Amino acid sequence: MEPSLHRIQQIQFADQKQEFNKRPTKIGRRSLSRSISQSSTDSYSSAASYTDSSDDETSPRDKQQKNSKGSSDFCVKNIKQAEFGRREIEIAEQEMPALMALRKRAQGEKPLAGAKIVGCTHITAQTAVLMETLGALGAQCRWAACNIYSTLNEVAAALAESGFPVFAWKGESEDDFWWCIDRCVNVEGWQPNMILDDGGDLTHWIYKKYPNMFKKIKGIVEESVTGVHRLYQLSKAGKLCVPAMNVNDSVTKQKFDNLYCCRESILDGLKRTTDMMFGGKQVVVCGYGEVGKGCCAALKAMGSIVYVTEIDPICALQACMDGFRLVKLNEVIRQVDIVITCTGNKNVVTREHLDRMKNSCIVCNMGHSNTEIDVASLRTPELTWERVRSQVDHVIWPDGKRIVLLAEGRLLNLSCSTVPTFVLSITATTQALALIELYNAPEGRYKQDVYLLPKKMDEYVASLHLPTFDAHLTELTDEQAKYLGLNKNGPFKPNYYRY
Amino acid sequence: MEPSLHRIQQIQFADQKQEFNKRPTKIGRRSLSRSISQSSTDSYSSAASYTDSSDDETSPRDKQQKNSKGSSDFCVKNIKQAEFGRREIEIAEQEMPALMALRKRAQGEKPLAGAKIVGCTHITAQTAVLMETLGALGAQCRWAACNIYSTLNEVAAALAESGFPVFAWKGESEDDFWWCIDRCVNVEGWQPNMILDDGGDLTHWIYKKYPNMFKKIKGIVEESVTGVHRLYQLSKAGKLCVPAMNVNDSVTKQKFDNLYCCRESILDGLKRTTDMMFGGKQVVVCGYGEVGKGCCAALKAMGSIVYVTEIDPICALQACMDGFRLVKLNEVIRQVDIVITCTGNKNVVTREHLDRMKNSCIVCNMGHSNTEIDVASLRTPELTWERVRSQVDHVIWPDGKRIVLLAEGRLLNLSCSTVPTFVLSITATTQALALIELYNAPEGRYKQDVYLLPKKMDEYVASLHLPTFDAHLTELTDEQAKYLGLNKNGPFKPNYYRY
Amino acid sequence: MEPSLHRIQQIQFADQKQEFNKRPTKIGRRSLSRSISQSSTDSYSSAASYTDSSDDETSPRDKQQKNSKGSSDFCVKNIKQAEFGRREIEIAEQEMPALMALRKRAQGEKPLAGAKIVGCTHITAQTAVLMETLGALGAQCRWAACNIYSTLNEVAAALAESGFPVFAWKGESEDDFWWCIDRCVNVEGWQPNMILDDGGDLTHWIYKKYPNMFKKIKGIVEESVTGVHRLYQLSKAGKLCVPAMNVNDSVTKQKFDNLYCCRESILDGLKRTTDMMFGGKQVVVCGYGEVGKGCCAALKAMGSIVYVTEIDPICALQACMDGFRLVKLNEVIRQVDIVITCTGNKNVVTREHLDRMKNSCIVCNMGHSNTEIDVASLRTPELTWERVRSQVDHVIWPDGKRIVLLAEGRLLNLSCSTVPTFVLSITATTQALALIELYNAPEGRYKQDVYLLPKKMDEYVASLHLPTFDAHLTELTDEQAKYLGLNKNGPFKPNYYRY
Amino acid sequence: MEPSLHRIQQIQFADQKQEFNKRPTKIGRRSLSRSISQSSTDSYSSAASYTDSSDDETSPRDKQQKNSKGSSDFCVKNIKQAEFGRREIEIAEQEMPALMALRKRAQGEKPLAGAKIVGCTHITAQTAVLMETLGALGAQCRWAACNIYSTLNEVAAALAESGFPVFAWKGESEDDFWWCIDRCVNVEGWQPNMILDDGGDLTHWIYKKYPNMFKKIKGIVEESVTGVHRLYQLSKAGKLCVPAMNVNDSVTKQKFDNLYCCRESILDGLKRTTDMMFGGKQVVVCGYGEVGKGCCAALKAMGSIVYVTEIDPICALQACMDGFRLVKLNEVIRQVDIVITCTGNKNVVTREHLDRMKNSCIVCNMGHSNTEIDVASLRTPELTWERVRSQVDHVIWPDGKRIVLLAEGRLLNLSCSTVPTFVLSITATTQALALIELYNAPEGRYKQDVYLLPKKMDEYVASLHLPTFDAHLTELTDEQAKYLGLNKNGPFKPNYYRY
Repeated sequence: MEPSLHRIQQIQFADQKQEFNKRPTKIGRRSLSRSISQSSTDSYSSAASYTDSSDDETSPRDKQQKNSKGSSDFCVKNIKQAEFGRREIEIAEQEMPALMALRKRAQGEKPLAGAKIVGCTHITAQTAVLMETLGALGAQCRWAACNIYSTLNEVAAALAESGFPVFAWKGESEDDFWWCIDRCVNVEGWQPNMILDDGGDLTHWIYKKYPNMFKKIKGIVEESVTGVHRLYQLSKAGKLCVPAMNVNDSVTKQKFDNLYCCRESILDGLKRTTDMMFGGKQVVVCGYGEVGKGCCAALKAMGSIVYVTEIDPICALQACMDGFRLVKLNEVIRQVDIVITCTGNKNVVTREHLDRMKNSCIVCNMGHSNTEIDVASLRTPELTWERVRSQVDHVIWPDGKRIVLLAEGRLLNLSCSTVPTFVLSITATTQALALIELYNAPEGRYKQDVYLLPKKMDEYVASLHLPTFDAHLTELTDEQAKYLGLNKNGPFKPNYYRY
Repeated sequence: MEPSLHRIQQIQFADQKQEFNKRPTKIGRRSLSRSISQSSTDSYSSAASYTDSSDDETSPRDKQQKNSKGSSDFCVKNIKQAEFGRREIEIAEQEMPALMALRKRAQGEKPLAGAKIVGCTHITAQTAVLMETLGALGAQCRWAACNIYSTLNEVAAALAESGFPVFAWKGESEDDFWWCIDRCVNVEGWQPNMILDDGGDLTHWIYKKYPNMFKKIKGIVEESVTGVHRLYQLSKAGKLCVPAMNVNDSVTKQKFDNLYCCRESILDGLKRTTDMMFGGKQVVVCGYGEVGKGCCAALKAMGSIVYVTEIDPICALQACMDGFRLVKLNEVIRQVDIVITCTGNKNVVTREHLDRMKNSCIVCNMGHSNTEIDVASLRTPELTWERVRSQVDHVIWPDGKRIVLLAEGRLLNLSCSTVPTFVLSITATTQALALIELYNAPEGRYKQDVYLLPKKMDEYVASLHLPTFDAHLTELTDEQAKYLGLNKNGPFKPNYYRY
Repeated sequence: MEPSLHRIQQIQFADQKQEFNKRPTKIGRRSLSRSISQSSTDSYSSAASYTDSSDDETSPRDKQQKNSKGSSDFCVKNIKQAEFGRREIEIAEQEMPALMALRKRAQGEKPLAGAKIVGCTHITAQTAVLMETLGALGAQCRWAACNIYSTLNEVAAALAESGFPVFAWKGESEDDFWWCIDRCVNVEGWQPNMILDDGGDLTHWIYKKYPNMFKKIKGIVEESVTGVHRLYQLSKAGKLCVPAMNVNDSVTKQKFDNLYCCRESILDGLKRTTDMMFGGKQVVVCGYGEVGKGCCAALKAMGSIVYVTEIDPICALQACMDGFRLVKLNEVIRQVDIVITCTGNKNVVTREHLDRMKNSCIVCNMGHSNTEIDVASLRTPELTWERVRSQVDHVIWPDGKRIVLLAEGRLLNLSCSTVPTFVLSITATTQALALIELYNAPEGRYKQDVYLLPKKMDEYVASLHLPTFDAHLTELTDEQAKYLGLNKNGPFKPNYYRY
Repeated sequence: MEPSLHRIQQIQFADQKQEFNKRPTKIGRRSLSRSISQSSTDSYSSAASYTDSSDDETSPRDKQQKNSKGSSDFCVKNIKQAEFGRREIEIAEQEMPALMALRKRAQGEKPLAGAKIVGCTHITAQTAVLMETLGALGAQCRWAACNIYSTLNEVAAALAESGFPVFAWKGESEDDFWWCIDRCVNVEGWQPNMILDDGGDLTHWIYKKYPNMFKKIKGIVEESVTGVHRLYQLSKAGKLCVPAMNVNDSVTKQKFDNLYCCRESILDGLKRTTDMMFGGKQVVVCGYGEVGKGCCAALKAMGSIVYVTEIDPICALQACMDGFRLVKLNEVIRQVDIVITCTGNKNVVTREHLDRMKNSCIVCNMGHSNTEIDVASLRTPELTWERVRSQVDHVIWPDGKRIVLLAEGRLLNLSCSTVPTFVLSITATTQALALIELYNAPEGRYKQDVYLLPKKMDEYVASLHLPTFDAHLTELTDEQAKYLGLNKNGPFKPNYYRY
């Protein structure tokens, strides 16, 4: 494989091939196991748990519910929770000024008039703000959840109450998962012409079950690493039959989701699970990409002593210049208080490392998936597991040594902290703009390929978020624009600019 | 002009066209004015001044000098200063371990055996380490200075004493400048087959005067923004007749020269010129690229209150997330104690701004060239200029208000501080590797075009500098490399990775 | 009152006088209102809430419980929770190495043999480690809670199961509160000879009800600002009849509880309540004492833009030098996203300020008590209060503007985050050493006065915590000690040293 | 000696006793050696060197000079340099707003009318601003230098030209030193009634030669550690015959001179001498007092990896919480790139340590005097010393290893960087206020003892410097002042407050 391909894509390639092969061709209710995409179960397993202590055991699929306008074109846990969900949506609106601005600016022209969008994403208050924005821009939407755990039932209820056909609840079975997706696309008298996907399951479903639908579809907007990878594979195989927009690799998303967001969520995740003090603690961070950089900066600022491991000499040199000792994991594993993985790699922390850690060492993963720590190696008879809190396990060695394992090695920030609305706002705005772009693009601008968001739109997303900070952008004078050879409205940087 | 072209290149384009047009066709001694490239006068005007209080007024061109082996194939200020220069070179060697390692590793195979390199760069102790490394690798070298002020006479003397044909001294006239270059290439019985250039003047000279030389030349390695731009122009115009390597845009160079180096040199430059205290001072930094990021980080760490101006909304959003108020210059110009430009733009600080600054405000430029501050606008009769120290002018308004202008708006870090050897080591190592690559590349690998350094070599440069920090790189296991789809030896990232 | 007295003491003076005056002379069950000390209700109201969703409505006082050894000399919520509490204690032990070291070092000599300690503190896992350490050192203990909300029932159960006479549960009434204290001291055949108090309620009770007990009491160790103030008042009034040790003002406690702990808990408290993103947010911190310094440092590190208000010009100048704009609250109140009070003053944030804040502004208190924000002024008919989460209220203006008020203006870090065990370890170790010192002091060393912990013991507490960080202290040589005029074992600083 | 005395004082005690004993009773021209106080030669040896390349060999004592008004009551290097000196004074005035404010505020009332001040301090532009302020407040002044190297001749000339009887030049002999002092006090028809001293030499001289003068002297203001120590000794011995004000231990001076000033000057000193890059460098800082804290914070911010050594467990714990590994020097001595001493102790870096350092290790002292590094141990035959720059020596081991020793182990910040005017402004303002206070104090307020500056004046000095930062102090309301038990105008903190 050429070295010029993106590492992350390589990772997913390995994952996905396996997964697609495993996927059964026939889907029967409750007959499926382990066939939905990893991302559909991987995340958010706890973040939302506080909102849902429902003891109602009836499956939403077996319930008859109507919203106040008499519609029953939805399937949610409990339509009566709509009011609470509405409040959450209103709170979210206050931190998503860019979407609100889009509503205002674009409402007159209704740039999505005629758009029929089928969506499959996490269903949260922030998604609701996106959906209602798309509605305000003229679109009709139908929506399912991209993850069986992540739906906020109250928000789903609020959306259903407002007339959005939403099919999602927290704790879906795998069969429910596909049933919900199917209810979004398999509708009499309605056919989607745009897809908004997060993880690729919706796109996959349409490919498998309703390939003819693509004739009317103007484009796909995909948000996740996994989904983007699937699209590149389709494209490579010559099977992508509509243009697709990769919003995952836009600058704003990358820098925000990774660097800035992890800078905060590493602290939050560790505090909520362990109440530990950071000052003076010795920490090793495996990997000095954007995520690692964010983690290291935050912990250093809180007075931790941070060591870094890297395989890439350039990132390694950055770690040195940023003031971190670059070590091999083995060199410090006996002395550190915390081990954090952010590599995108597998088995970075092995059983051998775990055996050598000192008592009370905390082990967690901020990278991808749950492969970085070899958690499976800890499932051996001589070790005792003790669940001490939600998302916190003590793994106990025969000599009494305890390792504190967080989120069973899954992503700490998704499992044990919350993602700030502001970050989600950037993503949602990017999605909305990508939909508008693809929907309104003149024939021929986009072919049956995967596109990055045009830099100008990336810049536009950023500019929509500046008012949040009362930030005032400087405008080029004509003379300056000419001197720089730039258009006064951007784009301002070449594509390869590193930021 | 397409927005996808690099902004910096645009800048230089404007500059260069003008300059090339102005360049007279005939060069007589002392008859030339303003025709050498801007970069050849722009920098280093003071950094080296402490070593040179010579009162010897005789032009080196009129002196007869021989080194201890009897050679007179050089032209330096004073061959007797060789010993002092040798000590400086030895000191520099201690901070350039990568070149010393190259000498060791590659000496057996002499990868530059047969190479005849003509070079035109700043002549400093660090350059001397590079030249002597090239010599150790098998090359013959002839060298001129790329800047009329920047030569360290003692170092030039030491090189001449060691047998290197060096033609350079501090304080060359423009005519001297071209004469020196000519003495490097116009030699009987010796013709260069490699060019190492910094600013493009050497390349330009050969194009103008000895175009036939290019038949034997295997490649050009160019270090500067200006020179690289000239090469791209030649390439675009179909006039580039050999492969050229752009080492300016390598990751290590960019991040080190800009982010990490400016983080230190902004403090150093301000202290050496003004002895000011940073704590509590209000500073506005114009531009939040790598240079601006470095300046802001350093000043924030020293307790300054930093404001940022930007035209690019993405960089602007980064400034916000990094904790800086994003303003228009006008909003803060009355209150700030220091104004720093890092935009690559022109007239960022105008006379109007200067009029509104408060008494004692310090104004300086960390960006490019000397266009960012409209210094010319201060040359009006009602304002008094008072030189208070080397590189420090007080510009005095009729009401007594003084503005402290540093380096007359030229680059502060080149003019008023020194560049750490370690940074120069990275650049020099990159140059050496680029020369080896071009010289040894099989026919056909490189065409008559401008190339970026292959990422693998960028990573190699980085890896050669890790031992300086006693940094230990982790190696991928076979299993991990397979999982990531990477070669265990790199490259480890796709070309578009942002670091 | 002389200005040279400690500000904090002034505060409490005002509070306390009022309170003592109000205190009724006769205590009947459930007949008391507002008579317990503020500190006994002020704190911890939510931190522990996750452990206690008990629906058992029976008052512990009405239950018959026995531990496994048959003892019923205790009163806790549910003795059956002992096992869960024991696990929490074991976890805490791992972060309290100093107490564990004390157990080891001092166990042979049993320095508290014969000590009969009555204690009144928060009853948490950390307190349990302290109590069991005191036990291991030879003491007999009886214990009540110093706060009606803060008891961890499981921990109380575990202590009772281990044989400690503990009288405490979460959610005591005020009558319960005094009943529990009384049960600790009013015992047949047992009379305390040492008091460990936190808030002064226990001391107060003995003064009021059993003044004769002081004849046998060797000393009081008091931990809180409030309690210390009461003691100074007693001393001033000539009514203090035993020596008392003020452990509140020891260096380690002050710096840890305030600077280092708040540096972490401000972030934690804000995240847990609001999930906000810190990057780019504008924050005003009122007060730049140790608490304010900690808050400012943390928020600056996370990319917030921080303004500071101060009344003291020295602290103000420190804020300037540390890089914060010093403003009056009015100047920034319209633009900030967060207002944090850390002054120890009252009505720092007034209704007028609240009226001018922008929509979604977050308001919280890290200072003392709940006086800093004039919360009472928000209890007016035109404003709507909406409880959106535990500890989070939206106060809604008629025009729809919402202010996000945290913990109703009470202490954010106590209400909405947890205090790291490590900090509590320092306090607990200090308490243990103070008890040992007072109990073993030769006749005459301490008179009927309030004493600060001897600096040497402060240094000893610090030294006991260094192994946690694998920190290696340097020892003076004889020659150096002589040169400095110091004892090799300390104390190393004069009393007025500022650290 | 009791451990509760200040460490620094102990140091000086040892030094001073020796010195006083050595001091000969009779002073003949050029007959004295090693008898002036250490502080009179220790500092500033190079900072001012750039202004003085005079080749005039005539002793100022042998010159006949008159200022433009015909006065010859002064002795400076060259009265003709007055204009240049005046400009330096004007520049300094711009960064000393507090003194300028004092001139304005107090000029009407002339609080120093009648004061006859004899001063002995460093003679710099900042001192000139102080002297001219004292003059503006009504005082007559006569002045000598407290250090034989530190006088700026141009400034001395400017003061002489303005009519100040100044007796000082750069490069005085020891005999000159005392002669100058004598010329200040031994004047016909003029007798001082106030002393402003820095180092105690002036005070000492009057004690020895003109003890009767003390009858008219209202007080001494002393600035230095050494001088303060001498005063405490006199006081202890019952020989202090006037009140003295110790301005060295005021909060503003301590925190600024040490923490904030060293935070900047460590970087400046290292850059100016070595041009090194800080990023990635390993540094050990010996001592974590205010100076060490400042050094560590700065280097950490620049990307260095910092280790700390300490003898005091409390400071050690602070280092841990601030994110530094606490080590013994031996543990890291082989690996570090820089060793910085800030202990106030002696022989912290021994020959054994120096033998074990790696090649190119930089060694310097930010602490006190020149005792911290055992420089004497390097004066052995097998080691070669090579002066590579001003203040930079290479010490070369037989195997070629070089240690880079800065300022021969003297204070780096005084020797190799400059002290910001702003810091000096704080000190000068404090001195002026102390003079006013002592001069105007009602009989009996001050006895024959050493006093600390009243906290209120310390606060006043701080407040005078706030306008520099456009900092706006908040005022207490009457209600708040009452609540806190404070006077609205301060003082705001108890004396033991740690800041």
